[in-house]
Amino acid sequence: MTIKAAVEFAQENQGRFVEELKALLRIPSVSTAPEHAGDVRLAAEFVAAELKRIGMENVRLIETATAERPGGHPLVYADWLKAGLGADGKAKPTVLCYGHYDVQPAEPLDEWLSPPFEPTERNGNLYARGAVDDKGQMWMHVKALESLMVAGGGTLPVNVRVIVEGEEEVGGEGIAHFVRAHGDQLQADVALVSDTEMFAPDLPTLCVGLRGMIYTEIEARGARTDLHSGMYGGAAPNPFVALAQVIAQLKDAEGKILIPGFYDKVAKPTEAELKAWKALPFDEEHYRETEVGSVALTGEPGYSVLERTWSRPTLDVHGMPGGFIGAGAKTVIPAKAVAKVSMRLVPDMTPAEAFAQYKAYVELLTPKGIVLEVRMIHSGDPIVVSTDNVYVKAATDAMHTVFGKETVFVRGGGSIPIVGDFVRELTIPTVMMGFGLPDDNLHAPNEKFHLANFYRGIESIVRFLSGVGA
Amino acid sequence: MTIKAAVEFAQENQGRFVEELKALLRIPSVSTAPEHAGDVRLAAEFVAAELKRIGMENVRLIETATAERPGGHPLVYADWLKAGLGADGKAKPTVLCYGHYDVQPAEPLDEWLSPPFEPTERNGNLYARGAVDDKGQMWMHVKALESLMVAGGGTLPVNVRVIVEGEEEVGGEGIAHFVRAHGDQLQADVALVSDTEMFAPDLPTLCVGLRGMIYTEIEARGARTDLHSGMYGGAAPNPFVALAQVIAQLKDAEGKILIPGFYDKVAKPTEAELKAWKALPFDEEHYRETEVGSVALTGEPGYSVLERTWSRPTLDVHGMPGGFIGAGAKTVIPAKAVAKVSMRLVPDMTPAEAFAQYKAYVELLTPKGIVLEVRMIHSGDPIVVSTDNVYVKAATDAMHTVFGKETVFVRGGGSIPIVGDFVRELTIPTVMMGFGLPDDNLHAPNEKFHLANFYRGIESIVRFLSGVGA
Repeated sequence: MTIKAAVEFAQENQGRFVEELKALLRIPSVSTAPEHAGDVRLAAEFVAAELKRIGMENVRLIETATAERPGGHPLVYADWLKAGLGADGKAKPTVLCYGHYDVQPAEPLDEWLSPPFEPTERNGNLYARGAVDDKGQMWMHVKALESLMVAGGGTLPVNVRVIVEGEEEVGGEGIAHFVRAHGDQLQADVALVSDTEMFAPDLPTLCVGLRGMIYTEIEARGARTDLHSGMYGGAAPNPFVALAQVIAQLKDAEGKILIPGFYDKVAKPTEAELKAWKALPFDEEHYRETEVGSVALTGEPGYSVLERTWSRPTLDVHGMPGGFIGAGAKTVIPAKAVAKVSMRLVPDMTPAEAFAQYKAYVELLTPKGIVLEVRMIHSGDPIVVSTDNVYVKAATDAMHTVFGKETVFVRGGGSIPIVGDFVRELTIPTVMMGFGLPDDNLHAPNEKFHLANFYRGIESIVRFLSGVGA
Repeated sequence: MTIKAAVEFAQENQGRFVEELKALLRIPSVSTAPEHAGDVRLAAEFVAAELKRIGMENVRLIETATAERPGGHPLVYADWLKAGLGADGKAKPTVLCYGHYDVQPAEPLDEWLSPPFEPTERNGNLYARGAVDDKGQMWMHVKALESLMVAGGGTLPVNVRVIVEGEEEVGGEGIAHFVRAHGDQLQADVALVSDTEMFAPDLPTLCVGLRGMIYTEIEARGARTDLHSGMYGGAAPNPFVALAQVIAQLKDAEGKILIPGFYDKVAKPTEAELKAWKALPFDEEHYRETEVGSVALTGEPGYSVLERTWSRPTLDVHGMPGGFIGAGAKTVIPAKAVAKVSMRLVPDMTPAEAFAQYKAYVELLTPKGIVLEVRMIHSGDPIVVSTDNVYVKAATDAMHTVFGKETVFVRGGGSIPIVGDFVRELTIPTVMMGFGLPDDNLHAPNEKFHLANFYRGIESIVRFLSGVGA
């Protein structure tokens, strides 16, 4: 009956839950922007205060800033570990609920239909930076815990630890250090992560694999100072031309990466997995037209879109700072230019080896007159999680009740760096139960969360936690 | 005796002349920046007021903004046409003094040792954006006219028209329209342009050729909106990678331009000119080390640096707006990216033909999944001016008196678009007598004018105008 009461409480309080989420979304906790450091902390304090209010214990901010990382953002920790013994006479399991309260930058601002930090409801969606990634999904956890706590008269059906980080969008270094140094403080039997998406609307989805990444910068330096292209054009090296020459040799025209050895460690998905992917409701032409909107898709020949985005490594350029980017014309040969280049990695690649291969190859390509510097900004391991455990069963049961459908198992193309640490350092399985939609515009203008999924997510988590504690 | 009095007046008033120039330099008349439109007009009014004060006539601003060009900046016009007959009984000639009061953007601001719009004297130099290009050199004209006017008791030794534009740094469209439509209002026998540099300190120099240019943008569009590189990397086209692939095919690794037909119309300098260039005091290694500061020079094999920068076309990339350029990491596949690409042209190339060749070739290179748009931002004709006339003789005589040295004839790698129009529309020779130095940092941080050259420039122009009117 506790489950029923918790689900009813959640339903009755939907309006308030959304208003609270809006308040959190109004805090521009952009973790990559030093000028928003105060906002990032504010968001952490907001989450901590709510965890305390709903009855979680040992609520505290864990500082991650050190002399070497003065800009580290705090972790939010809370727990409730009084669940006692289960029907089998053994101690009930502990679930580690993970989320992040930091968000991506909102630029380009002029493409938002409503301001990114003024949450706005339209057509059943809540629009704001962080709506789904990940403030909204993290808030589902908090609200599921509140609902269970109220229904249970101040108790939960299972032991719970909550850890919420503020650096997921910048590589998650702070939480990674903490897990490696103080993993015992997060000791649990399973991690619950809601930072992924559903494969299609109304299709309950568990994510069982994530690509890793290395995010790098290549800095090209030519002349000592900016020069006039009239006077020096034809003699002075041009850092943008040099970067173009390098980038053009990183991938071929089709999208195959040309870094020697880069594919050597790439593991092929199992036949069963590939077969399951083929059975998913997915039409490449529909995807091209509705999700990407380009005249054609690109990528390695011989692989489906799902393979290319889930189980193959990729390389992208995100921006090329330097020189003149204003309106009109400035005839400058800039002294330096930078390319922000990232690579997505898949099992069994490692960031260290991939970066070493990439760096050596880029340096080999150094154009005449140019000095290149290749630097790592951050990295994350690729992972595949186990599906053969009671926690995955509890998750699929919970979602079956809520959605009335069988769960599909997919992989994600993006990285959630901490999941790799949970697997490696805590040696626990992770359940990635996410409620975003493919068109939720993560990391892009007009990010949204479909509110129906916010509510279904809360109910699914209520049922999952109850199931694990049963 | 008028010359002597004028030279003395100029010497006695050096301090005031510099202070006036500083006041003009404090106006941030950046013509490419819409937010500085008011400052650009302020600079025009400043110049007009001074021309009026020193006794020039018919001083007025000529508006160039039209419905099609709402951002056009005004021309400043003045004349004094009462010189009467010369010793030979013929009407004295008319000199058209040209300069520009607009400046390049000052970015990157953090590389300036003193703020770009707070003129600062250090080591005999005046540092400010526009110090030498071209406010300082234009001010030499105004101060030479003032000195002659005072010495002549309100008269000049020659007829003079002054035209000062505010769009030189953005292609000079306004003055080009005016010259084509109202060339009669600028009717003159010779144009005097001080917007070039001396080949070396203390070496009087006339510039007798200029490269033309086309300044373009290539816009690459991939997906409809910015996408997350985790989710879409491997399927969505990347506009930066696409631009890199295009740019890498515009020039080869050595610097030879690969656009089909691009070199077809390139005229070889005369044997005499090439021989004179070889005799100039120029050391490529010294130039690399002191002026460029790169580990090596680049450019077409088989040509000297002077040939590569004076008589060979080039291609440069000035900036690549789009995507994420902040500090840190953002994993975006931007919907679009832009490359600002310019080409320097030499006789007998034409901007129209070069742009057509370039556009067709770029479109041919369009990478998969990408839509490219190639647009012209502005252009200017390459020119070579005649050296066989009395005006060039008057200029070399004037500078011989001031510097005690023979003048060298060089070309300039940059463009002064209006010079082409003077040659074509007014069919008059142009004397390009400039007093900048190679290390004056035109278009770059820490632009400066060596004040000794400011003073020598004024005296040279006093003597030149007197010589033409003799």
